[in-house]
Amino acid sequence: MTEQITKLAEVFSHFPGIGQKQARRFVYFLLGQNPAFIKTLTGEIESLKKSAKICLDCQRFFFHSGQKKTCPICEDNSRQNILMIVSRDLDVENIERAGEFKGKYFVLGGVVPILEKQPEKKIRISSLLQYLEKLGREKKLTEIILATDFNPEGENTAEFVKTKIEPLAKKYNFKISSLGKGLSLGTELEYSDPETIKNALKNRV
Amino acid sequence: MTEQITKLAEVFSHFPGIGQKQARRFVYFLLGQNPAFIKTLTGEIESLKKSAKICLDCQRFFFHSGQKKTCPICEDNSRQNILMIVSRDLDVENIERAGEFKGKYFVLGGVVPILEKQPEKKIRISSLLQYLEKLGREKKLTEIILATDFNPEGENTAEFVKTKIEPLAKKYNFKISSLGKGLSLGTELEYSDPETIKNALKNRV
Amino acid sequence: MTEQITKLAEVFSHFPGIGQKQARRFVYFLLGQNPAFIKTLTGEIESLKKSAKICLDCQRFFFHSGQKKTCPICEDNSRQNILMIVSRDLDVENIERAGEFKGKYFVLGGVVPILEKQPEKKIRISSLLQYLEKLGREKKLTEIILATDFNPEGENTAEFVKTKIEPLAKKYNFKISSLGKGLSLGTELEYSDPETIKNALKNRV
Amino acid sequence: MTEQITKLAEVFSHFPGIGQKQARRFVYFLLGQNPAFIKTLTGEIESLKKSAKICLDCQRFFFHSGQKKTCPICEDNSRQNILMIVSRDLDVENIERAGEFKGKYFVLGGVVPILEKQPEKKIRISSLLQYLEKLGREKKLTEIILATDFNPEGENTAEFVKTKIEPLAKKYNFKISSLGKGLSLGTELEYSDPETIKNALKNRV
Repeated sequence: MTEQITKLAEVFSHFPGIGQKQARRFVYFLLGQNPAFIKTLTGEIESLKKSAKICLDCQRFFFHSGQKKTCPICEDNSRQNILMIVSRDLDVENIERAGEFKGKYFVLGGVVPILEKQPEKKIRISSLLQYLEKLGREKKLTEIILATDFNPEGENTAEFVKTKIEPLAKKYNFKISSLGKGLSLGTELEYSDPETIKNALKNRV
Repeated sequence: MTEQITKLAEVFSHFPGIGQKQARRFVYFLLGQNPAFIKTLTGEIESLKKSAKICLDCQRFFFHSGQKKTCPICEDNSRQNILMIVSRDLDVENIERAGEFKGKYFVLGGVVPILEKQPEKKIRISSLLQYLEKLGREKKLTEIILATDFNPEGENTAEFVKTKIEPLAKKYNFKISSLGKGLSLGTELEYSDPETIKNALKNRV
Repeated sequence: MTEQITKLAEVFSHFPGIGQKQARRFVYFLLGQNPAFIKTLTGEIESLKKSAKICLDCQRFFFHSGQKKTCPICEDNSRQNILMIVSRDLDVENIERAGEFKGKYFVLGGVVPILEKQPEKKIRISSLLQYLEKLGREKKLTEIILATDFNPEGENTAEFVKTKIEPLAKKYNFKISSLGKGLSLGTELEYSDPETIKNALKNRV
Repeated sequence: MTEQITKLAEVFSHFPGIGQKQARRFVYFLLGQNPAFIKTLTGEIESLKKSAKICLDCQRFFFHSGQKKTCPICEDNSRQNILMIVSRDLDVENIERAGEFKGKYFVLGGVVPILEKQPEKKIRISSLLQYLEKLGREKKLTEIILATDFNPEGENTAEFVKTKIEPLAKKYNFKISSLGKGLSLGTELEYSDPETIKNALKNRV
């Protein structure tokens, strides 16, 4: 209706999962907030970007006011044997929340779509190779876990990454593994798909 | 995980329809955007609040860089006979989009919950009464449409407003009406609720 | 898997809203039931069809062991002024449940799809015309309500029926009306479609 | 409305996943079908129960007009090394559809709810033990797969069965295994639950 509403709604409509209608609701929501809320919101957005750094090792976003160039997980010396390669920062967050994994991460920053002509432009493959060289020379890493989503794009990404890292894995004697596949919490056998049944059988313990 | 992410996610979690998880996705989404996007976002949010005014007549938000104190709809002289009372700015937007209504609006700014002790604190009832006085003296208004949501809170709001405006309606000879009730688009008789059937029968044409 | 299961599942898959998977679940459910349940089920299905009659007047299914040819609603002399024309038996059931309507019904037995070449094959239009002639001669009917679903097919059906019954309505002085359209229970103005807003405005009371 | 409809609807409302409303729709659907459909339906239901047998070995339902007492899967001599224990006939059907498993089955006929006082009344545990004795004496079985749903009831069932079969497994040297747990098709790491992440890590390959 009015230009200012439309312009801000357009910006919000780029947010993940937000359509035109909800974007407009966001704008009217903000119109109804007091100046303190608005100041907190814009202040936090600006300071987020100012204080965010990308870790030189794992490529995750991290926050530090000083000179540090690597994130707290990468600096944790108790996490040295295993490297988990994931697609996104949020994957790291969710896996950390589960509290089981005690190794390092590398964030690819995306996925490789099926039939992608230039996969190296979609994910940080050269940073990964450099990082693996460094880890290889340090002689502490023993295993690399490919931890991409279990869907066609994720599988394709894992396959591409595997091909690229195999020479280094051979050179430095890294084992390459993948996350286990099978029944996930809530699976009912009556309704499970053939792929899941197949994996659950193959990986039975 | 990190304080900065948590703080901004907390702010986003107040947005309508946004839970903790999606709030964090918003933060990571912003981390991945370039500085231009961030600047546009914060700039538009700030300018929205700076340039937004509340119309002295209908109480809607509107935008004008000059001295105007009433919104374009209120200033449109062809829209003088009917006043539609709604709960929210977005109701006005949606009704305008339908393109049928050619009158003015008044935005209550909320609803009156069932059993609310202080209804006058929930909606702009005194501004409404003042505005109706003004419209009454101008002698152009002939009808007031109560256009609240068709749910218990909306019905309760309409009832409260009706009681409050009835003296003025009598004094100035305003007809008070309500939006028609009946089958709405997509209603199948086999599945429709008794209230809708009752209204559809009563309001048959 | 086995022929018997597949055959019965195929029959169940014709039931309204039942897909292949649920049809098989029905079969396994029946396999697990005791003989008494099976006997009750098949017995009730058979006796349903045996004792069901179609009312000569309204064309509804009804049940009567004797010689009666019309249903209890049609025989109720207090229901004589108004006739409601609906598409299906279940519409009658749902409207009766609402408890507001105190007239007779006529069940068309279907809808007329948009662009249908032979509408008279889709609904019981000739039975309707005969029934209206009878009601006209009895001189008690004053109004006919077209009560089809509020969707394109329902509207199309109502339009076709209206054209067909108009001559008789003129001859016998029946008023033809339609169910009221507007906000149905639960409608929020912010989200309502233009058609509903338009009807709610036009039919305001 | 009418007794006959209500009675049959009541029977249908016991079908899995069918509520009161859909049960009535089934009845009206049947009223509208021709006698041939009704005859096929009741005929198939009756012949289903008449020709269904329960396999003496795996306890599945199977169909055979002759004297056979065991089902085709149990009679297949190429399926002798592995036994999969499942809760329901439909589990067998779905696993067979996946086409990966080449062993025998045993159908428990249910699950053991958490805190169940009499688990042996919920599933066919004594038939299972007899069958395992038989298989043990035949000396062909090497592995038993516990294949229950991956939810609390399924896990509880598996645990109960495991305790009961362990003595026989020791006596006859059967390996007891469980279906693999981990990522199932479609899992996105960002959204996966801690239990699934934990299993995917533990069972990585």
